[in-house]
This record gives sequence, structure tokens and C-alpha cells, in this order.
Amino acid sequence: MTRCQLTSLIRSRQSFLCVGLDTDPRLLPASVQSEPDPVFAFNKAIIEQTSPYCVAYKINTAFYEQLGPQGWESLAKTLEVIPTDHFIIADAKRGDIGNTSLRYARAFLETLNCDAITVAPYMGSDSVEPFLKIDGKWAIVLALTSNTGSADFQQLTLSDGRKLYEQVLLTAASWGTPDNMMFVVGATHPEALSGIRELVPDHFLLVPGVGAQGGSLEAVARHALNEDVGLLVNSSRSILYASSAPDGAHRAAQEARLLQQQMAAFL
Amino acid sequence: MTRCQLTSLIRSRQSFLCVGLDTDPRLLPASVQSEPDPVFAFNKAIIEQTSPYCVAYKINTAFYEQLGPQGWESLAKTLEVIPTDHFIIADAKRGDIGNTSLRYARAFLETLNCDAITVAPYMGSDSVEPFLKIDGKWAIVLALTSNTGSADFQQLTLSDGRKLYEQVLLTAASWGTPDNMMFVVGATHPEALSGIRELVPDHFLLVPGVGAQGGSLEAVARHALNEDVGLLVNSSRSILYASSAPDGAHRAAQEARLLQQQMAAFL
Repeated sequence: MTRCQLTSLIRSRQSFLCVGLDTDPRLLPASVQSEPDPVFAFNKAIIEQTSPYCVAYKINTAFYEQLGPQGWESLAKTLEVIPTDHFIIADAKRGDIGNTSLRYARAFLETLNCDAITVAPYMGSDSVEPFLKIDGKWAIVLALTSNTGSADFQQLTLSDGRKLYEQVLLTAASWGTPDNMMFVVGATHPEALSGIRELVPDHFLLVPGVGAQGGSLEAVARHALNEDVGLLVNSSRSILYASSAPDGAHRAAQEARLLQQQMAAFL
Repeated sequence: MTRCQLTSLIRSRQSFLCVGLDTDPRLLPASVQSEPDPVFAFNKAIIEQTSPYCVAYKINTAFYEQLGPQGWESLAKTLEVIPTDHFIIADAKRGDIGNTSLRYARAFLETLNCDAITVAPYMGSDSVEPFLKIDGKWAIVLALTSNTGSADFQQLTLSDGRKLYEQVLLTAASWGTPDNMMFVVGATHPEALSGIRELVPDHFLLVPGVGAQGGSLEAVARHALNEDVGLLVNSSRSILYASSAPDGAHRAAQEARLLQQQMAAFL
């Protein structure tokens, strides 16, 4: 999906919501436990209920990897039931030397046919570039993450006065374009968003941390929206586990719609 | 496997060699192509031939993930045929917010029962700590990697004059101990090894980059060995693809034995 198509989709659906499928086998409602593949059955119900209110789904690969080969089957089947008018992100945080990143790029952007993958920047240019070389696909580079550990390295000050995450934004932006690269910026750092927008005015930002992690949608929208929208806000736990009742997927839809309505007011 | 056990193993086998199973399905010899699982058949032959000369195997997860669920089957079967007196590293370079890193830790250190996993430090303390909480298991944190991209961020100078990778060594070392944490340091930076040894005198270093990437075993051994050995040197491509002849695994054994003999001279 191109940047232009993504922006159009957001405007027509009046939503920049990404639903994170961090599906925890131990938190599934009893209603899906008897299914042959409970994780897939849960995801399918969530997708059917929430797809009118979101433009993207984000698959957190760790939750599937912990289940071994069966988890990868559940992941692949989940991807098949996501409607084609949704942007699909593999939240995998990969990154390795070039010949290895190339394999991760093939795994997620070709074999699994996701639109984008999240990438850790620590290993530098040749660890990110293989993800940028597949036509129509995206690398989403970690810049300033939502967790407390972001203070340990990302917020360190460099000898020229810049923060490390600011240098990551500038350097990584030089490897790609706003048409094949986005950045992860946590909603828990609203004070940093304006500065980030000055450094990368045109790139889409993927913003986790609204909901269970405490970030404010209003603060994110005010600081991060640009002329092409340029923003995807992710919510995982507060939608997936809105209710453990048999009609849990319906409650998830209500949560997603509520976020969509709030987002519409900012568009 | 504990640090004491690993050191004993190295001394008795007179080798600190780690064989990297970066198994590329397109580089397999014709002799295994007709097997039901060619990747597993190749790995099994390599392991049978090289196990007397190495103390560790490192599984590069990208090469298996690119094959989808079948790749995870090959990976799991490969782990089962590694003799128990070898240290097993999942070279996965994971790292995410705490609740997600916890899933990766379970996937690799519990479900797959590896001894260690490589971890990217960019997301900080809570992204690494879940890997340290499983008894008898190890996190191997990226410090100074072997690739050219290591110059982009790892070698940036901080406001206090330290390099970022030096700060990563110091900060990450405070989260664990030399009994549950190692560091990745590329053999392509021999000039940095002495300084790294001063910062983390007791930790094991996992050193890739000898062989296809051009690093020198002699320089690594001279600068990085400590009283408890403290060193694992990885070689992947130069062993795996020593020959594409039907007796390729036998040639791999010769390559591994050659490295083992060189290592014995430093012990």
C-alpha cells in the first residue's frame, strides 16, 4: 500500500487507528477455547468486528513465536482474513547484518506479504536497507519507544547536543523516503512529538502507548498530524481484552469505534 | 549451562568455537535436496561432523523464519540433534517492551530450550530484563557489531566522551551479571577489544566476523581472552559452505578442526 493510498484510506474511514493483535493465549475467552485454533478464532472475530473502524492491523510476532510452529500457522491464517483495504504491520523489531536482514525482509514482506515491518536501528544502515528494497513495502524504524527503558539509550545526549533518538530519525530518514519508511514514537512522550515533527515533517509516525500504557490520543493528534495525516495510532490490549464475556469481540468493536470517533474529530 | 560449565567445556575440548547455522536453502548440496526436510538434513550432517571441534551452535533465526512454519519445524528438529554438551544460542536479536520480551524469552529459552538469545539493546532495561529472569539462561546483548552499519549509531560519541557502545556495555552490565549476560563484539573491530575488556573484564564475549567477514582470530584471542576464557568465536559461512560436494559436511569438519587447533594454541 502506497503512502497516498494509506492517506486516502484514513480520510475515507475517518480513522488512523491500528489494532494491535498481541493475542495472549491465556487471556482468550472461553467461547474460543474449544476451537481447533483458538488464537486464530479470536483474531478472526476481532478483525470482523473492528475492521470498519481501523485502517491497520499490527501483529506482535512474539505472541505467536512463543507457541512454536503452531503459532506461525495461526499468524499466517490471521493475515489471510485481514481485509485487503487494511495496512498490515509485522511488529517484529528485527535488524541484523545485511545478509540476515534480507531474510527477515523476505519472511515478513514477501512470504507473509505484510505491508510493513518494525525494525530496530542499533545495527545501522546495512541492517535496515534490505527492508527498503522491496517495492511497495515499508520499514518502520524504532525512534523513541513508549517504554521506561527508552531513557537508557534513546534519550542519551550526543556530543553535538542532539539526543540519540533525534540522530536516529535524521540518519535513518536519509536511507529511505517518506514513501517507504515510518518511525515508531511512543504516545508516552507527548513533549517530544513537536520536535520530532520538525525533524521528519513528512514521514508517517506509528504511535503505540495510547490506552493500557497511558498515552493521550489528544496530545498525539495535536502534535503529530501533518498535511497527509502522517499518523497511525495503535491500541492493543484495551481493544482485544475490552471484555472476556462471550460477546467480547463486540465490546472490542465498541472500543475501536470510540477511538475512531475521537480520531474523526481531529481529521 | 552455567559459566563455570562453559569454561570447563572450552578447556576440555580446547576450543571456543561456535558454529553458526545460517543455513541457506539455496546453498544446500544436491545430496540433501531430496530429503523430506533438506535444511534439517544439512544441519544434522554439519552437527555430526563438527561437534567434536566446537562448544556452541548459534541458530540464525532469520534463515528459518523466511521458510514460514516449515522453517520453525526445521529449527526445532535441529535443536533436538545438538549434543547436550554444547551451548545453544538463538541468534534472534529480539527486544521489545517488557510484556513482549517476556514472550520472546519464553519462545526461545523455554519452548525451544536454548541456553541463550541475542538481544538488541535500543529499547533499554525493561526490554532486556525478561531474558535475565529465567534460571540458567543467558541474554547476549549487542554492543559493537561486525557490520559497517555499526558506525552509524554504536560508535557515536556521547556528551561525556564515551562511545554509545561503551555506554551500552556499562549500563547493560548493571542489569545482569557475568553469569547470565554476554556481549556481542564483532571481530572486525580488533582495535576496540582491549578497551571493551577493561569495561567488562568478566563477561563472556560472543565474537562473530571471523572468516567471511574478514576478522582475525589471533587479534581477537590476544585482546579478548580472560582468566575464565570469556570468549566464544563464531564462524558460519566458512564452515557451512566449505564445499558444495557430496562430502561437504566432511569438509566443514576440516574447517572446524582447523579453527579448533588454532584456538587450542591460545588456551
